[in-house]
Amino acid sequence: MSESKFHGVIPPVVIPLDANRQIDLMAFERSINRMINAGVDGLFFLGSSGEVAFLTDAQRYHVLQEAVAIVNKRVPVLAGIIDMETLRVIDQAKRAEGYGVDGLVATAPFYALGGPREVEQHFRVIRENTSLPLFAYDLPVCVHTKLDPDMLVKLGQDGVLQGVKDSSGDDVAFRWLCLENEDAGHPLQLFTGHEVVVDGAYLSGADGSVPGLANLDPDSYVAQWKAYQAGDWETVRRIQDKLARLMFITRRVNATVGFGAGVGAFKTALWQMGVFNTNQMREPVQALEGKDVETIVAILKENGLMDADAPIKTK
Amino acid sequence: MSESKFHGVIPPVVIPLDANRQIDLMAFERSINRMINAGVDGLFFLGSSGEVAFLTDAQRYHVLQEAVAIVNKRVPVLAGIIDMETLRVIDQAKRAEGYGVDGLVATAPFYALGGPREVEQHFRVIRENTSLPLFAYDLPVCVHTKLDPDMLVKLGQDGVLQGVKDSSGDDVAFRWLCLENEDAGHPLQLFTGHEVVVDGAYLSGADGSVPGLANLDPDSYVAQWKAYQAGDWETVRRIQDKLARLMFITRRVNATVGFGAGVGAFKTALWQMGVFNTNQMREPVQALEGKDVETIVAILKENGLMDADAPIKTK
Amino acid sequence: MSESKFHGVIPPVVIPLDANRQIDLMAFERSINRMINAGVDGLFFLGSSGEVAFLTDAQRYHVLQEAVAIVNKRVPVLAGIIDMETLRVIDQAKRAEGYGVDGLVATAPFYALGGPREVEQHFRVIRENTSLPLFAYDLPVCVHTKLDPDMLVKLGQDGVLQGVKDSSGDDVAFRWLCLENEDAGHPLQLFTGHEVVVDGAYLSGADGSVPGLANLDPDSYVAQWKAYQAGDWETVRRIQDKLARLMFITRRVNATVGFGAGVGAFKTALWQMGVFNTNQMREPVQALEGKDVETIVAILKENGLMDADAPIKTK
Amino acid sequence: MSESKFHGVIPPVVIPLDANRQIDLMAFERSINRMINAGVDGLFFLGSSGEVAFLTDAQRYHVLQEAVAIVNKRVPVLAGIIDMETLRVIDQAKRAEGYGVDGLVATAPFYALGGPREVEQHFRVIRENTSLPLFAYDLPVCVHTKLDPDMLVKLGQDGVLQGVKDSSGDDVAFRWLCLENEDAGHPLQLFTGHEVVVDGAYLSGADGSVPGLANLDPDSYVAQWKAYQAGDWETVRRIQDKLARLMFITRRVNATVGFGAGVGAFKTALWQMGVFNTNQMREPVQALEGKDVETIVAILKENGLMDADAPIKTK
Repeated sequence: MSESKFHGVIPPVVIPLDANRQIDLMAFERSINRMINAGVDGLFFLGSSGEVAFLTDAQRYHVLQEAVAIVNKRVPVLAGIIDMETLRVIDQAKRAEGYGVDGLVATAPFYALGGPREVEQHFRVIRENTSLPLFAYDLPVCVHTKLDPDMLVKLGQDGVLQGVKDSSGDDVAFRWLCLENEDAGHPLQLFTGHEVVVDGAYLSGADGSVPGLANLDPDSYVAQWKAYQAGDWETVRRIQDKLARLMFITRRVNATVGFGAGVGAFKTALWQMGVFNTNQMREPVQALEGKDVETIVAILKENGLMDADAPIKTK
Repeated sequence: MSESKFHGVIPPVVIPLDANRQIDLMAFERSINRMINAGVDGLFFLGSSGEVAFLTDAQRYHVLQEAVAIVNKRVPVLAGIIDMETLRVIDQAKRAEGYGVDGLVATAPFYALGGPREVEQHFRVIRENTSLPLFAYDLPVCVHTKLDPDMLVKLGQDGVLQGVKDSSGDDVAFRWLCLENEDAGHPLQLFTGHEVVVDGAYLSGADGSVPGLANLDPDSYVAQWKAYQAGDWETVRRIQDKLARLMFITRRVNATVGFGAGVGAFKTALWQMGVFNTNQMREPVQALEGKDVETIVAILKENGLMDADAPIKTK
Repeated sequence: MSESKFHGVIPPVVIPLDANRQIDLMAFERSINRMINAGVDGLFFLGSSGEVAFLTDAQRYHVLQEAVAIVNKRVPVLAGIIDMETLRVIDQAKRAEGYGVDGLVATAPFYALGGPREVEQHFRVIRENTSLPLFAYDLPVCVHTKLDPDMLVKLGQDGVLQGVKDSSGDDVAFRWLCLENEDAGHPLQLFTGHEVVVDGAYLSGADGSVPGLANLDPDSYVAQWKAYQAGDWETVRRIQDKLARLMFITRRVNATVGFGAGVGAFKTALWQMGVFNTNQMREPVQALEGKDVETIVAILKENGLMDADAPIKTK
Repeated sequence: MSESKFHGVIPPVVIPLDANRQIDLMAFERSINRMINAGVDGLFFLGSSGEVAFLTDAQRYHVLQEAVAIVNKRVPVLAGIIDMETLRVIDQAKRAEGYGVDGLVATAPFYALGGPREVEQHFRVIRENTSLPLFAYDLPVCVHTKLDPDMLVKLGQDGVLQGVKDSSGDDVAFRWLCLENEDAGHPLQLFTGHEVVVDGAYLSGADGSVPGLANLDPDSYVAQWKAYQAGDWETVRRIQDKLARLMFITRRVNATVGFGAGVGAFKTALWQMGVFNTNQMREPVQALEGKDVETIVAILKENGLMDADAPIKTK
C-alpha cells in the first residue's frame, strides 16, 4: 500500500433532491455525515452516482460548493470533471479547482471518438492545465473507450495520473493493471468502482474502492476494508456476499432500465431508509414507484437496512 | 415537399483555426460566403463537422455570434445544442437562442443511457424550454442510441420536432421514417447527413441534406438538389458518384482514425484549396501531415477541386 | 452491366415446413415455381431467410437436392455454405458442389474472430477448394465482421470472388464498393440484400438484389429490375415505396424479436396468402400467432397481396 | 461444495498439430498425461482453446475418440457441442455421446439471434435430446448473447443444466449467479473460464475453473485449488498473480489479434516448452513467428516454465 492519502473506501455521493428538483441540503449533509462517521476515507462528488451528466454547470458547482463546506476537510474530496473532449474537461477542471477540492476525476474523451493516441494526449493536456491530483475514470459503458493498462501505468510514471477509478467491468484487465503498476513501483492508486466484487479487486491488490452502494451501507464497506488490511479474507468475502445481495435492489427494478434503475434504486432506498426525503430524479428520468419501491423495501429489510415492521413511505 | 423554410442543402460548417487554435475569422467568412454564393439553402453550425464536442462553451458562442453576423439572414442558421442530458441541453438551447439562430439541433441523451421513454421525454422537455424550431439529430455512432421512426413521427405530429437530421447510417430505417412521415401528413422535414449517398435519401423522399463535404464542393450538392427537384435522376446519380469519389479523402487517411481522419481530411482539403489557411485541429486531435496531405491533394486534383499543377502547401 | 449470368433479382428462398417440422415439398415447389414464373433471375438457397443456421447438415442437403431438382436449370441456383471457420465452410462447399448448384455463398469466419488478414485468407482458401463461382456474403449482424470494399475488389481481381451479396446495412460502404469495382473493371457482381432500399442500391450501380420479401411479391421486384434497366427511376422508386410498406409486416410483430420476427413474418404471410400451408418455424423459434398474425394479414390486404375479404387462416 | 464429480480444475485442452495440420497424437497424449499427472479434476475437449470452430466434424470426432481413449476414465471428460442453432447442436450432442464422454458443453444459439425465450428453449430442447450432464457455456465474445443468471438457476432447478462454464468476463453477474445458485440449493456447478482471475471466482464461491493456461502450468492451478479448499487465501492469491503474469504471453503478441494471439500464444509456448512439436494453427490462422516467439520465450523463462539458458526452437 502506498503512502498516498487516496486509499480505502471513497463513495461516489448520491445527491438528494427536493420535490422541486433542487438539492435538499439537509439530506445532503445528513448523508455525507453518515458516511464520514462510518469511517470512509474520502468522498467522490459529480460521478455517475452523483448524476453528473444530468446537472447544468450551475448545479454542478452548487454541489461542489456545498460539499466542500460540509466535508470541511474531514476527508479528501474528489470531483468529477466530466465532459466530452479535452478543452471542455479543462474548463470543468479549472472551475472545480476553484472550489477547493483535493483531486479531479476525468474519463476518456467521448462523443467524437479517436484512437489511443488521442486518449493519451487528452490526459496529458488536462495535466498541464491543473495542479490537482488527476484520476482517470475507466468507464467504457458511458464513454465507449476502454483505457489500456499499459498506457495508464506510463501516465502514472510520467506524473500525469495519480490513480485510476476502474469501472470497466473488466476484471482481467484490472488484474493486469495492478501487476504492471506494482512492477513499475506503484505510481498509481487503483480503485474499483464495482461494489459487487470489491473483494476480488482487493485480491488483485487494489488500493481502495469507490462503491455507490456505500451511500446505503458505509459501515460494511469500511469493515471490509479493515478486514482486507488485516488479511482476514473470510471476513472480506462474507461482507461482500452480503453487499452483493443488497445490490439486488438495482436488479429487481422492472419499470425502467439503465441509469434510472441503478441510481434510481439507490435514491429510493435512501428515501425509504430515512436518509433522503424523496427519491426524486432529474429529467428525463422518472423516479421509481409502486411495485419497484415495494421490492426495494423488501430487500432492505432482508438485509437489515430497514426494520422489519417499518412502513413503506409514500409521497 | 412541404412549405417549410428548412429544405435543400444545409451544410454543417467546418470551422477554420489559426496557428494558435483561435477561430480564423477571415477564413470563416470566406468559407461561409463561398457556400452561400453557391446557393445552399441554410447553414448548420456546431455539429460534428463543426467540432462541437471539442469547443468550450465560450468558443461555441463565439462561433454562433460570428456566424449569425456573417450569414446576416441570407439563409436560415441552425445551431447544434449538443450536451449530455436534458438540463444541460436546455442550457445550451437558451444561450443559442439568445444569439438569434433560426433553429436548434439536439441528439438523444448520452453518457448515462436510459430506455425509449427517457429519449422521448428528453425531446419533449427541451421543446417546453425553447420557442425555436427543434430538430432531432440521429447519430448513434456518437450517442449510442438509434432514434425510432415511430417516435420521431409522433413527436412531429405533437409539434415537438420540426424535423430530423439523420446520420444514423441506417438507410432502411430512413426509408421507413420517410414513409411514415408521409402517411402522417409530412409533419417533419427530413435531412440526410450522409454525403456519400444523398441520392438514395432523395429517392426515399428526403427534404434535403446536411453534407459535410459541401464545405469543399457546395456547387455540386446544389446542382444535385436542383436535379432532384426537376426529377432528373441520372444527373442526381452522376453528381453523387463524383462526390462519393471526392469523399475518398477521408478513407485514404492512414495516420489516424475516427474524427481526426474525417474532419481532419476536410480541413486539410480546405487548406490546400485555399479556403482555409491551415488544417489546425483542436486538442487532443492532431492535424494531418506528410503522406496523408499528399494523398488528399491527389484526390482533389483528380476531382477538379485543385489545379493539376498546383503545389502542395506547407506550414 | 457485366455479361455474367448472375444478375437481376435472386430471392433467398424461404423454406415451408409441415406440422412435423419436415420440409413441405409441395409448398416448396409451389413457392419456387411462383418466383420463377414471375421472372426472377436466380434463386438462393440456404441463406438466412432459408433458416440455414437452424438446419442440420442432413436437412441442408435435403433442401439442396430438392431445390436443384425443382428448379431444373430454369434459373441459376446459389447455395449458402454457412459455417464457423474455413475448414468447416469447405466441407459444406464440397457437399453443395455435389448437388449440382451453380454458385456458392460464404460469409466471413465467425465465432472465433481474427483480423483482416484471416478474413482474406479465409476466402482464398475456400477458392482453392471448389471450382464453383464464389460469392462473399457481407452480413455483420450475424458474423460481426464487416467486409472491407478494398479487400473485396482485390479478391475479385484475383479471381477469388465472383461477387458479393451485401447485407451489411452500410449504404456508404456499398457505394464505395460499387465505385471501386467499376474502377477495377467490374470484376465483381454486386447484389444488395436489403429489400427495403433496393432502389438506392441500383442508383449506386448494383448488379442485382437478393430480397427476402420477393418470396411474397416477386412480380414487383422483377418489374423494378426492368424499370432500372430501362432507366425509369420514377417507377423504380414507386415500386420500392410499395415494397417498403409491405415490409412493415416484420416491423409490427410484437411477440418476439430478431430472426423470429423477420422470417417468422415472411412465413406467416406466405401461409395466409396460401403459398405455404403453415407458418411453422424451427427450434428454438416459435411461430407467430394471435395478434401478430392479424397485423400481418391487415398489411397484406392494404398492399393487395390478399383479398380484402379473405378470412384469417387458423391451424 | 456439492458432491458432484464435476469440480476443481478442468483445463480446456489445446490440440497439437503436425506440420501437415493433422493431430500430433504423441504430443496430444503427452500433454493430456502431463495435466492428469499434475492432478487436474477433469478435461474439456472441443472448446475455444481446442479450436472447435476450426475443426470439421470428422476432425472433431477424431479428437473425441482419441481423447476418450487416452484419458481412459482417469478423470471426467467434457465435450463441447458447438454449433449455430438448436438442431445442429443436438446433432453434435448425439455424436459426442456415442464416443463415451461424461458431459456436454453448449453455448447460447448464435448467428441468428433471438430473445431470452429462444435461449431458454434452446437449452431445454437440447436437454430432451441427450442423457448426459449438460453445461451452459457463457461466452458472449463469441456468441454475442450473455446468459442471464436467473435463467441459469431456473434451468438448474429444472434439471436442464448441470452447471455453467462462465467465460463472460462479467464478474458482477458471476457473483450474482453464485449467490442465486446458493439460495436455490446449489443445483449448478459453476466454473470460471478466466484464467487470470480464478481467485476472484473462488472468492465468489465457484466450484472450479476451466483455465486454458493450465495447459502450460497445470501444477499451479491444482495447487491453487487445494489452497482454496484449505481456506489459504494468501496462497490462492499469490499463485494467481504468478499465473496472471504468465498470461502476458497472450498480451505481448504483436503480429495478430484475437484467436491467433490467444491460442496461438498457448501453442507457441507449449512448443517451446517441449510439450508440442510445433505451433501449427488451422486455416485461416497463421502460426506466430519471429519476434512474437522470442517474446513468449522470454516470459516463459521469467516465470520458470523454461530454463534460462534454453535455446529458442525453430522449425
